[in-house]
Formats: sequence, C-alpha cells, structure tokens
Amino acid sequence: MTSLGTLYGLGLGPGDPDLMSVRADRLLRSATHVAFFRKAGRPGQARRIVEGLLPASAVEHAMEYPVTTEIAVDDPAYNETLSAFYAECAAHLRALSNDGHDVVVLCEGDPFFYGSFMHLYTRLVATHPVQVVPAITGMSGAWTVTGQPITWGDDVLTVLMGTLPEARLARHMADSDALVVMKIGRHLDKVRRALATAGRLDEAWLIEFATMPGQTVVKLAQHEGRVTPYFSIVVVHGQGRRP
Amino acid sequence: MTSLGTLYGLGLGPGDPDLMSVRADRLLRSATHVAFFRKAGRPGQARRIVEGLLPASAVEHAMEYPVTTEIAVDDPAYNETLSAFYAECAAHLRALSNDGHDVVVLCEGDPFFYGSFMHLYTRLVATHPVQVVPAITGMSGAWTVTGQPITWGDDVLTVLMGTLPEARLARHMADSDALVVMKIGRHLDKVRRALATAGRLDEAWLIEFATMPGQTVVKLAQHEGRVTPYFSIVVVHGQGRRP
Repeated sequence: MTSLGTLYGLGLGPGDPDLMSVRADRLLRSATHVAFFRKAGRPGQARRIVEGLLPASAVEHAMEYPVTTEIAVDDPAYNETLSAFYAECAAHLRALSNDGHDVVVLCEGDPFFYGSFMHLYTRLVATHPVQVVPAITGMSGAWTVTGQPITWGDDVLTVLMGTLPEARLARHMADSDALVVMKIGRHLDKVRRALATAGRLDEAWLIEFATMPGQTVVKLAQHEGRVTPYFSIVVVHGQGRRP
Repeated sequence: MTSLGTLYGLGLGPGDPDLMSVRADRLLRSATHVAFFRKAGRPGQARRIVEGLLPASAVEHAMEYPVTTEIAVDDPAYNETLSAFYAECAAHLRALSNDGHDVVVLCEGDPFFYGSFMHLYTRLVATHPVQVVPAITGMSGAWTVTGQPITWGDDVLTVLMGTLPEARLARHMADSDALVVMKIGRHLDKVRRALATAGRLDEAWLIEFATMPGQTVVKLAQHEGRVTPYFSIVVVHGQGRRP
C-alpha cells in the first residue's frame, strides 16, 4: 500500500527569493509536484517568486481562480463559486497525496496570515498529512523597506484590511499606536479618508511591491491617488518608549 | 582610507534555525564579527539559535544588559541606565565599522518588530551603513504551531504587550477579531483577567518556546498558572469569512 504524500503549505515571504526560509528553499529545490494559485491567464505572483528555483522535472499544477468580478462579494453566489473552486483544488491535492506524491503549495507571505492556502488546509488536514512552513509576512517586508521600526516598547499594533467599512477603519486607526493596512487596491481612497478622520494621514506610508522589482515607498499624503496594486500595504509607525 | 564596514541587523526568526532566511543563513556562515545581546551570565537566546552555524574564526561580541531588576520601569533611572548601555554598544559597533569590519548583529524574531536592535539602529543609521534583514516573527511561529490560521477574510488583528494596563488590554481584546499578546512573563495573570473581561479567555492559546525544543501549546484556560517565560505568546484566532 502506498503511503500518503505530504502536502506542504509553503510560505515564500514578501517577494524577494532571498527572504524565504532555509526550509522553504530546500523543499523547493527538491520538489516533484508544485501547486499554486493564479488568476486565469496570469503567471501568478507566487510562481514568479520561485522562478529558477524549481527542478526542471517538477510537475506544475496551476489552480486558476474562477472569474468572480461580476459577482458582488456579499452575494451568496460569490462564496459558493469560491467554495466549489477550493473543494476542487483540495480534491486534486488529495488525489496526488493518495498516489504517494508530496506536493509543495506555493503561498505568498505567511500561509496562516490572511492566506488562500487556509481554504485548502481546512479541507485537507483531517485526512491527509499537511505541513505549514511559516514565512516572513508581506507587512514585515513593507515596514523593513521604510527604514523605520514599526513598534517600540508597548506600542499597540493593529492590522486592518482595506475592505472593511470606513467607520470601522477610522475607529481602529484612532485607537492604535502602529498600523498596517493590507488589501488596499481600489479601497485606497477610503483608507485615506479613514486615516484623515483618525488624524493619522500625515504619518502614513504607502509601500508597493515591497522587496520586489518595482518597489516604491512614499508618504501616502503625497501619493497621486492613481490605482495601487491589491498587495500594496499602508504602514503607520508606532512612537513608543525608546531609551 | 578604509571604507566603513556594514552593520547588519540580522533577524533570526522564531527560534528554529531552519526558519531563518536564506540571506540570514548566508551572512552567518561568512560572518567575521558577530554581536548579540544577552543577560549577564546567560548564553543568550539569539546566540543559541545560531549555534553550529558560525565560522570558527568569527569574533564574538556579547552585549550584556545592565541589571535593571532593582529599578522600576517608570523610574527615569531605568531609561537612563538602558540608554547609556545602548550608547556604549553603538560606540563599539561604530568602532568596528570604522575599522572596515562588517558586523552581524543577531536579533530574535524580526528586528523592526519590538526588537532591541532598533535602539542601536537609531543611533547608527545616520552615520554608518546599516542593513536590516527581516525575519519570521515569533508570533508567526506561535500561530503556525497551533495548527490553525490566525486571520481570515477581513479579520482585524491586534498585537498587544502584556506590559500594558489591564483596562487597555481588555478594551482592545473586546474590539478585535484575532489577538496576539507578547511579553507575557510575570504579566500572565493580568492578561488572563483582561481576556476574561473581554469574553475571550476560552478562545485563547498559550504558546511557549514556539518552533524550539521545549515547545508547548495549551489552551490558556487550562494552563496551571505557573510562571511562563517572557517570550511566551498568547494567541486568539480570528473566525472571519471562509468560503
């Protein structure tokens, strides 16, 4: 009887391949099956990070998101479409594991921190061997490239998604010392208004493509307001005790 | 004229050497000067993580914290003692850099995230070449070993220090989806009371020595209340949208 293969949720970190973990690097260089999410017709950000690292013999499994832009996020059909997609991906990985194959699933950032892999993890972990390899988060990459520490002493850090309602964003922004806002994309104007309401706009930085080619770091108040990538990150540094 | 050596704030991650970055591993294996903080008479946690990785020829510089347990944190003498210590360490690193030596400064976790290295960074960055290598945070290590994702969808994550006043802890605990509490140590009872006040105690996990020998993961409500290490971490997982 073939023993089950291990499914790895492999965190790749913020984008620079040099910042992935020694364990992730080793697993990639000996990988036989590699799976990754991507938008239809796009190379996929996670796949791009490992370019040149995979053995030529590795079998690649692209998991292409169903097009959901025509369905509103709060429409039940949105969740149903995504749920069916994740179920199908999980079934594919399960079949590979049943055949004894180890599979490395590429994850941007840290898999358990707002990652897509979690939707596979919950569908697989009860029946198949799954190992999660943590990684440097995108936000660590972002605050590092600002050249300023994010938190000092007993600063409170709050991590917010740009998808939240403006009033909730503003409330948390006013009540925290340091801030990280992720999933910005088309929510940039709302995030900017919430920061202004909370009196924090002048302290905010916008980081695009942290640690990657095309990286930009600007004060948010000076940003032109053009569309920013979904993976942009806003950072407000804490100002806590510093002997 | 000798050119200045580079001072690296080298993040080592949560503790397992296999989880440090490829860049950190490479810098360590070619290091000529290595500096690290430790308590007097102790090996030092950061130094322990790199055991076996440094070249035998590397010169080691232990930076020993002054004993401050007899001074209250809110006594101005506490800050003055620490400030003098950091100034002295920075002067030592500056002298090495002036002589053309690169120095790797070992940092547990991520250097810009509640790290001690920041106190050297601010004293050095204006005049000397300093590079910060981000790393997997201790909290990523902690939530990974719980085997459950920390945040989903648009969950709010708040990071709190156990050193904060109980009322402020409870307020943030009630107003956030996911929680991380660091710097627990002798503040464990206060943290537990604040979680109970916020109605979150039953969801809380206590992680000791995440990713290291001696690792423990327990529900906080079932913890015996014995003293826990300063670097213990409490985690409450978010329960956001999951298709």
